[in-house]
Amino acid sequence: MTAEPSGPAASPAGPDAGLLGPGWAGSPAATATGDRAWLQALLDAEAALTRAQAALDLAPARAAAAVTAAADADRFDVRSLAERARGGGNPVIPLIADLTAAVGEEHGPYVHRGATSQDIMDTAAMLVAARTLDLVLADLARVAAALARLAAAHRDSAMPGRTLTQHAVPTTFGLKAAGWRSLVLDARDRLTAVRNALPAQLGGAAGTLAAFSAYGASDPTALPAAYARELGLRAPALPWHTLRTPLADLAGALALTAGALGKIAADVLTLSRTEIAEVAEGGGGGSSAMPHKANPVRSTLIAAAARRAPLLAATLFGTLTAQDERPAGAWHAEWEPLRDLLRLTGGAARDAVELTEGLRVRPDLMREHLGFTHGSIVSERLSAELTPLLGRARADELLSRLAGRARAEHRPLSELLAEEPALKELDLAELTDPSRYTGSAGALTDRALERR
Amino acid sequence: MTAEPSGPAASPAGPDAGLLGPGWAGSPAATATGDRAWLQALLDAEAALTRAQAALDLAPARAAAAVTAAADADRFDVRSLAERARGGGNPVIPLIADLTAAVGEEHGPYVHRGATSQDIMDTAAMLVAARTLDLVLADLARVAAALARLAAAHRDSAMPGRTLTQHAVPTTFGLKAAGWRSLVLDARDRLTAVRNALPAQLGGAAGTLAAFSAYGASDPTALPAAYARELGLRAPALPWHTLRTPLADLAGALALTAGALGKIAADVLTLSRTEIAEVAEGGGGGSSAMPHKANPVRSTLIAAAARRAPLLAATLFGTLTAQDERPAGAWHAEWEPLRDLLRLTGGAARDAVELTEGLRVRPDLMREHLGFTHGSIVSERLSAELTPLLGRARADELLSRLAGRARAEHRPLSELLAEEPALKELDLAELTDPSRYTGSAGALTDRALERR
Amino acid sequence: MTAEPSGPAASPAGPDAGLLGPGWAGSPAATATGDRAWLQALLDAEAALTRAQAALDLAPARAAAAVTAAADADRFDVRSLAERARGGGNPVIPLIADLTAAVGEEHGPYVHRGATSQDIMDTAAMLVAARTLDLVLADLARVAAALARLAAAHRDSAMPGRTLTQHAVPTTFGLKAAGWRSLVLDARDRLTAVRNALPAQLGGAAGTLAAFSAYGASDPTALPAAYARELGLRAPALPWHTLRTPLADLAGALALTAGALGKIAADVLTLSRTEIAEVAEGGGGGSSAMPHKANPVRSTLIAAAARRAPLLAATLFGTLTAQDERPAGAWHAEWEPLRDLLRLTGGAARDAVELTEGLRVRPDLMREHLGFTHGSIVSERLSAELTPLLGRARADELLSRLAGRARAEHRPLSELLAEEPALKELDLAELTDPSRYTGSAGALTDRALERR
Amino acid sequence: MTAEPSGPAASPAGPDAGLLGPGWAGSPAATATGDRAWLQALLDAEAALTRAQAALDLAPARAAAAVTAAADADRFDVRSLAERARGGGNPVIPLIADLTAAVGEEHGPYVHRGATSQDIMDTAAMLVAARTLDLVLADLARVAAALARLAAAHRDSAMPGRTLTQHAVPTTFGLKAAGWRSLVLDARDRLTAVRNALPAQLGGAAGTLAAFSAYGASDPTALPAAYARELGLRAPALPWHTLRTPLADLAGALALTAGALGKIAADVLTLSRTEIAEVAEGGGGGSSAMPHKANPVRSTLIAAAARRAPLLAATLFGTLTAQDERPAGAWHAEWEPLRDLLRLTGGAARDAVELTEGLRVRPDLMREHLGFTHGSIVSERLSAELTPLLGRARADELLSRLAGRARAEHRPLSELLAEEPALKELDLAELTDPSRYTGSAGALTDRALERR
Repeated sequence: MTAEPSGPAASPAGPDAGLLGPGWAGSPAATATGDRAWLQALLDAEAALTRAQAALDLAPARAAAAVTAAADADRFDVRSLAERARGGGNPVIPLIADLTAAVGEEHGPYVHRGATSQDIMDTAAMLVAARTLDLVLADLARVAAALARLAAAHRDSAMPGRTLTQHAVPTTFGLKAAGWRSLVLDARDRLTAVRNALPAQLGGAAGTLAAFSAYGASDPTALPAAYARELGLRAPALPWHTLRTPLADLAGALALTAGALGKIAADVLTLSRTEIAEVAEGGGGGSSAMPHKANPVRSTLIAAAARRAPLLAATLFGTLTAQDERPAGAWHAEWEPLRDLLRLTGGAARDAVELTEGLRVRPDLMREHLGFTHGSIVSERLSAELTPLLGRARADELLSRLAGRARAEHRPLSELLAEEPALKELDLAELTDPSRYTGSAGALTDRALERR
Repeated sequence: MTAEPSGPAASPAGPDAGLLGPGWAGSPAATATGDRAWLQALLDAEAALTRAQAALDLAPARAAAAVTAAADADRFDVRSLAERARGGGNPVIPLIADLTAAVGEEHGPYVHRGATSQDIMDTAAMLVAARTLDLVLADLARVAAALARLAAAHRDSAMPGRTLTQHAVPTTFGLKAAGWRSLVLDARDRLTAVRNALPAQLGGAAGTLAAFSAYGASDPTALPAAYARELGLRAPALPWHTLRTPLADLAGALALTAGALGKIAADVLTLSRTEIAEVAEGGGGGSSAMPHKANPVRSTLIAAAARRAPLLAATLFGTLTAQDERPAGAWHAEWEPLRDLLRLTGGAARDAVELTEGLRVRPDLMREHLGFTHGSIVSERLSAELTPLLGRARADELLSRLAGRARAEHRPLSELLAEEPALKELDLAELTDPSRYTGSAGALTDRALERR
Repeated sequence: MTAEPSGPAASPAGPDAGLLGPGWAGSPAATATGDRAWLQALLDAEAALTRAQAALDLAPARAAAAVTAAADADRFDVRSLAERARGGGNPVIPLIADLTAAVGEEHGPYVHRGATSQDIMDTAAMLVAARTLDLVLADLARVAAALARLAAAHRDSAMPGRTLTQHAVPTTFGLKAAGWRSLVLDARDRLTAVRNALPAQLGGAAGTLAAFSAYGASDPTALPAAYARELGLRAPALPWHTLRTPLADLAGALALTAGALGKIAADVLTLSRTEIAEVAEGGGGGSSAMPHKANPVRSTLIAAAARRAPLLAATLFGTLTAQDERPAGAWHAEWEPLRDLLRLTGGAARDAVELTEGLRVRPDLMREHLGFTHGSIVSERLSAELTPLLGRARADELLSRLAGRARAEHRPLSELLAEEPALKELDLAELTDPSRYTGSAGALTDRALERR
Repeated sequence: MTAEPSGPAASPAGPDAGLLGPGWAGSPAATATGDRAWLQALLDAEAALTRAQAALDLAPARAAAAVTAAADADRFDVRSLAERARGGGNPVIPLIADLTAAVGEEHGPYVHRGATSQDIMDTAAMLVAARTLDLVLADLARVAAALARLAAAHRDSAMPGRTLTQHAVPTTFGLKAAGWRSLVLDARDRLTAVRNALPAQLGGAAGTLAAFSAYGASDPTALPAAYARELGLRAPALPWHTLRTPLADLAGALALTAGALGKIAADVLTLSRTEIAEVAEGGGGGSSAMPHKANPVRSTLIAAAARRAPLLAATLFGTLTAQDERPAGAWHAEWEPLRDLLRLTGGAARDAVELTEGLRVRPDLMREHLGFTHGSIVSERLSAELTPLLGRARADELLSRLAGRARAEHRPLSELLAEEPALKELDLAELTDPSRYTGSAGALTDRALERR
């Protein structure tokens, strides 16, 4: 009854539904980036092309209406298109055939007229990007709002500042949340700028718009603008078949976004460790075998996305080196990584909404943990205070010795300091209270929250 | 009648059928790596686990039979599993629920007993990898055979050797094809080694096999071996939940394979340029607008895969830094990149079969191109011959001057050399014939073809 | 007399002078990013910190003057610093010791007062980036100017447009150069924006500015701005020890720049192939053994940089996931990749200056190559013209048949078309002249050159 | 007194001494990979080439002796070579000139005779790799030995197993250390295999060995083997100028090694957090401002190397797509990433020696932490035991309820269970003792330690 590992799976492939992608499956970005959404965007581009030609009197209005009516993804077979795409290397070639057939003999000649496959594919990519970014931006706005609430609520919740994994000096959870928010706003600003600049693509076979002249346009350079208007995209200054700034801009902004959310997730994962537990996800994921476990699943999935995003972005940066008027490979290598990057970032944004809106914060434990080092967490402050009194050398020696004793004897440093006659004048209660050594954390939080 | 770019696509996502992946859609690897294949592998792992327990008297044989019978991917809803995977962060958790329900109350307790999600997920990944690698290896064997035929047939077809894009000295197409083959055999050897070492995964919640003791196993360490036997995988020395050598080995061997095929594609793309045309793909892809074009589509798609593979491999190498007994993110970041890497490499192997089996070679054009530099392509040889006669300085001066004249006057270098009295004794016809300056290309080709 | 490969090299390491980096060694960016430049930037940051404190009456003016005077890289031993950096994991720790010693006992306490190592290291990174970007921007301006001249000079130089390696339809070299320039201007715009936003870093041990309070500052939040003013950097909104947007922005803009230059190099490499030779580098690199060779070395080195940049950028995007208030590893992983990215991009910009200022263009060969496909390069146009005359089916059949004959008989398509009675009325000389089928290339070039 | 950020640093670049690389500066790998070591390897390759020709009677023995004597890195100016490398794009070209001058007129003609720059550069890269890998392997042996000692010493030191950051079930520190060791041995095995296969490179201008014929060799294919013997490298089956398997193999094995060490570092960083402190680095790095801090610096630097290695490996995998007989860029892009990867991995191996040899382990704290979840850490076991007694539903309900009470009331689960009449027969002391629920951890550790 041994399974046979080496034979191919017997039944047909079946499409992918996201079984390996719990970080994006079921999210708004999943819908906006799926094969069907991409197919619809391809059709939208074709329809806009005919409409733009009609607007410039290069095609009959009836043809434009017919193509627009036919351009409905539900009327096309995405699997068949996918398989026929193999022949010419892109899905637009079979799609033109099917769309031409769909509109009938009269209007067929106006389908894809004068354009090249890449005009449609690139435009569709920009449409999919625009539609997905709008969803991502909406989720980032919710994340930023949730973080603003957390920062304000915990403006003065002191907690250990941690550097290289060790307690350093105190900080506040408010400042941490405000910092997270500032990263999210950075991501928002860059994504917004990129989204608003997404250009339509129209150049014809080699980017000269020559076929449009051949088909009678007196000024073909007017066509890309008309086409972009139909699509709600920016008109391109030049055909950008091999001038791939829009892809690089998307790559950079999406990698920043995934990384910004990844920073939040990394901190939550640390702070929700069993031994720390200063924060907890609202609805931690369970484990079948271990009912007590509440896993930080949202953070985990965001962290996974943040690990992958830089590599996907690197793929897109690499395709900038696109040879000739259309490259043999660099262009084809963009499509899936762009989709993955949009999808993972979109899934992470949705997870971040749930994470930040549901985050449970334990200021009581934060305060308790400030005592973990028996007072050494304020040694920086004590050093500054004692040096004028004792000289730097003696101050350092005293602090170092007492910190060692505090650790060894499990006694608070304040107690040991109080035994030193030379320090009698000092307000040791104040000086050794970690929650009074948060510096400008409050003021910095207030300032950060002013940013809109 | 303007489309609305910012609204989400109206209809449901629909699964992905490969619309953006002409490099793999429809290939054997597509079937072997799809969601359905992965689901079947998960079920195969669960069934093998119960069977292995039955084999060691830890579960009733009837339970093993029942789980095995139920473990049929067609009986499960992959989309539902994908969406429910979000809760706990992996698809095994909802699958256990559905499989338990499927086997009924009596046998339910023996489903997934003592295991952890990662045991099943990792094992399934190894099964999918094994099944896909078998397909890839079969295609690589065909590629190697086709290249052996090309190398033998063109053992003495002289052509320009090109370095830094410029003609350097002659080589042969036989040596080039033999070199391609040696890369393919390198890939085959590494993939074979990795494939044969793919381990099953079984460790329980933290890799100690403790739950199996709790359920009555006297020697739980016997269980992983029994489980591996059921699956045709290697028994692991240790649970490897966070010891990810198998993933790194897969990453390295697959990246080498994609790169090896990418080297072939890069050369074919260059040699099939309109101006060179020394080779052509058997069935070049057409263009709707330009009927004369025969695009090197197979090479293009292989080149696209080769651009992406190193980044996917890097993602997997990066997940080696997996914290604790199960990491929060590093593990989850492996699944899609592993699938993509298997799929892209498998698609590229299939494209390489078609490319190499159909490649059309034009030795006539190769020979013609040897004359492109008017004889300078053998200047290295002439320099070696003339130096003893004239001294190095005079020889270099003469060659450099005559090469310049040959270029300027479009005359063969041999003609100009013949006018030099000092060279009368030389057999200039022989010395300036590029096809007689291929060095050991033939012998190297023969030797390379001896490798099996 | 056999060398021993396995023994370590016998003599001391010696510093790196760029032996493996011909793409950047000797360039302005090499000087601006070397260890010495970085050391000076660290010292500049320390001096600015003391001056800023003096400006706010937190330190004596004499101390500020003393630290500033001592902050001269030539007075420090970079090798010793490098080796002592190992202990604490960064070079600031030993530098503080050496600088404190250098300023003497009186002013020593004002060295690095209240700051953390990362404040200095991050600020130095921004200084090095600012100084290098200024050099890169100057070189990009020269590249853009050279490309503008090329585009204007060759506005109407027709050449084959190439897609997927095959001749498609004609384009012009002017449009190609204008496209290259538009990429360079995109890079310039993004680099300029990033450069102007580079922030100083100041936060103290955990980013709360607390130590400055301990040392007597009434409003520590004023200090970062004063410090930034001293350095000519932007004042940070928040300490950004683990909010790494500036690094991500640098990564994105530098990767775009390297890719933009890489696109130019990729095209030059193709167009300067022996068989094409439409362009040539001004001063091609020679080969000792093959005097006829003129290698496109500048393009080669730019292409090498463009291959590496996306991966270096990915490393920096990856470090966005920086845990806690200072991460254990993510920060340390930034330094060398940032330097490499600055250096490679700077070297590529300098190579691009030489490449574009010296590029030799051969419009005669471009024109000649338009005939390579015997007229098929205008088949798109002919199809558009003949379809109204003959109907699409007959037009396509005729063109396809005649194109085949043109190829087989090596005769121009125009000649064969002239034999067709149905086409007598057409101005075939005009219709089949590739240089008259460049569409809007001229107008697009003009428009692109208007961008400043 | 404001610094000028935008001007270039005034003084000359100066070489790099590792100021930004505390992870490798000062390590054995630093010496073995520095510019000087690379220069010596280039010279070793040139000398071996002349010696091999002498061995086959293609050059005078005196010439071989002269070249060997001259081939001393200390006699060459590395900075000058680096800057002159710019012209032709690699350092071999100026080096040949300098070496030829150094050996004098008589022997000059035998320098580099018949070879191409890449023969020397590739061979030098293999020499540098071999020499560095020997050092790395020695350090890995020490790491493995230290881990074997730790695993044996702590075979039964129970500690919390952690998954997705949460306590799951117990494990042992012995099993963890044994797992780390198995990863290190995996790395050792792969590095050893790669190191033993490192080939010399010899092919001449286009890989045909033609020039050696021109210089009189009757069987040039004997030369590469003779040359490899001189160098202690493997004889290549074919010239591999564009068959880059050796680079890919290095990339894969080094990335695995860095990742294996990175896994250890990641665990140490987690376990040495202030709140956990189950392990500590022997000599933690201090902080100037915070005397109590003992930073895990070795782990931090290893973690930084592990973040960078996958991207460097990806660069090398990417260069497999090397066009023609020598590529314009792909080859040049290899040198620095290969050096960086060797250097970072070598530095990490040295850091890992110090880390593992000095690691301080606190079994007392590990035991204490097993109680952190008030007994829930053994809920898996209890579930297995209670289910037969109570049925699954009641058992689950009871455990879940009591675990909740244990958390809320800060009482051990064992105490609450003891109050349940139905469980009176159970040996609750045994069943709830986490240190008795380590499953097969001991046996697995023993088995893992048998591997040599």
